[in-house]
Amino acid sequence: MGHASSIPAGAGRSDDESRSARKRRAIMEAATTLFLRNGYQGTSMDEIAAVAGVSKQTVYKNFADKERLFSDIILGVTESVNEFVHVMTLMLEDTDDLEKDLGELARRYITSVMQPQVLQLRRLLVGEAGRFPELARTYYERAPQRVLAALAPRLQRLAERGLLRLDDPLLAASHFAFLILGIPLDKAMFGANDDSFTAEELEHFADAGVRVFLAAYGQP
Amino acid sequence: MGHASSIPAGAGRSDDESRSARKRRAIMEAATTLFLRNGYQGTSMDEIAAVAGVSKQTVYKNFADKERLFSDIILGVTESVNEFVHVMTLMLEDTDDLEKDLGELARRYITSVMQPQVLQLRRLLVGEAGRFPELARTYYERAPQRVLAALAPRLQRLAERGLLRLDDPLLAASHFAFLILGIPLDKAMFGANDDSFTAEELEHFADAGVRVFLAAYGQP
Repeated sequence: MGHASSIPAGAGRSDDESRSARKRRAIMEAATTLFLRNGYQGTSMDEIAAVAGVSKQTVYKNFADKERLFSDIILGVTESVNEFVHVMTLMLEDTDDLEKDLGELARRYITSVMQPQVLQLRRLLVGEAGRFPELARTYYERAPQRVLAALAPRLQRLAERGLLRLDDPLLAASHFAFLILGIPLDKAMFGANDDSFTAEELEHFADAGVRVFLAAYGQP
Repeated sequence: MGHASSIPAGAGRSDDESRSARKRRAIMEAATTLFLRNGYQGTSMDEIAAVAGVSKQTVYKNFADKERLFSDIILGVTESVNEFVHVMTLMLEDTDDLEKDLGELARRYITSVMQPQVLQLRRLLVGEAGRFPELARTYYERAPQRVLAALAPRLQRLAERGLLRLDDPLLAASHFAFLILGIPLDKAMFGANDDSFTAEELEHFADAGVRVFLAAYGQP
């Protein structure tokens, strides 16, 4: 405490803040590792503190309980969705080469969903959906459904511009999504792909999905 | 023991057999209930014995350990796949109304995959895929992949008959599957549908999926 007085107040606060942010991040990383390795039930707050290299008290100061920590990790995954939705809107807004832009969008979509840690947390959450129905539902709304809900009016707009033919934009958005993601995502859920598709394989799924989507929904 | 001698040997054996089959079924049902309620790790062989109303010894006589019991339950789900594959082959073999027969097939497919207990066990297995990679992979091969592998040559045959256009039968089979199952299955994985689509909703997904599939892969 004596030393603190020699440090300018602003700098001290900033150091404290970054130290506390670092600790919080270390706790979340340790918890993610342990949840993925041993499951939610197989992980204790004691172990999380030990792996994070902080006291159990510090863990509880940051996260009221194990459920809250799990929830923060899972919902953290959905934070990148807003950015993806923004990019999607820009890409489709004034497209003058629909095949090219849908293809590019599809490749970004599959790459973002198929990140190994996103998949691993998705598996964990699916397995815990019975115990945490609210969390699973919130994740679904903020991630998969959010993308579909944002894509639907974009497709509708493309139909109004005469570039697509569709009556049900949300259904069309869902068909787009599952034509692209269905195969690798289902395989990954069972770990039947060793969690690693190559970039070329993912690109192939994306391109093939877009081809079928446009054959069905595009202008003849 | 004294009483047994008054029962004809054949009848006695048959009674024993059915009693032992009944016990085995009771153990599997109790274990399924407990695994779904409390997870794999949250379930003990003691509880399974108590819920099944048998001794722990009887549980171990039937199933070497908890892992074996879990595995038998999960792989039991895949037993209905052979029958589905057989029906599928018959339906598509000599079809002279492809739209009608694919529609009927799609409705059977979605109904069989979307059974509540099949979905619940699927969620449980996805959550445990990290701990039981072999089991998850075997399930994937015997259920989702088995259907795709059986559908692909059927679609190829339809292409040879001039009813479909495709170069990659397995890819076409996968597109068929995810156009139909993608939406409800993804929702169900997160419990975001309260595990209950109506028969009409499932039929709608099936019909819409077939429409898109035929628009892309059918003859113009």
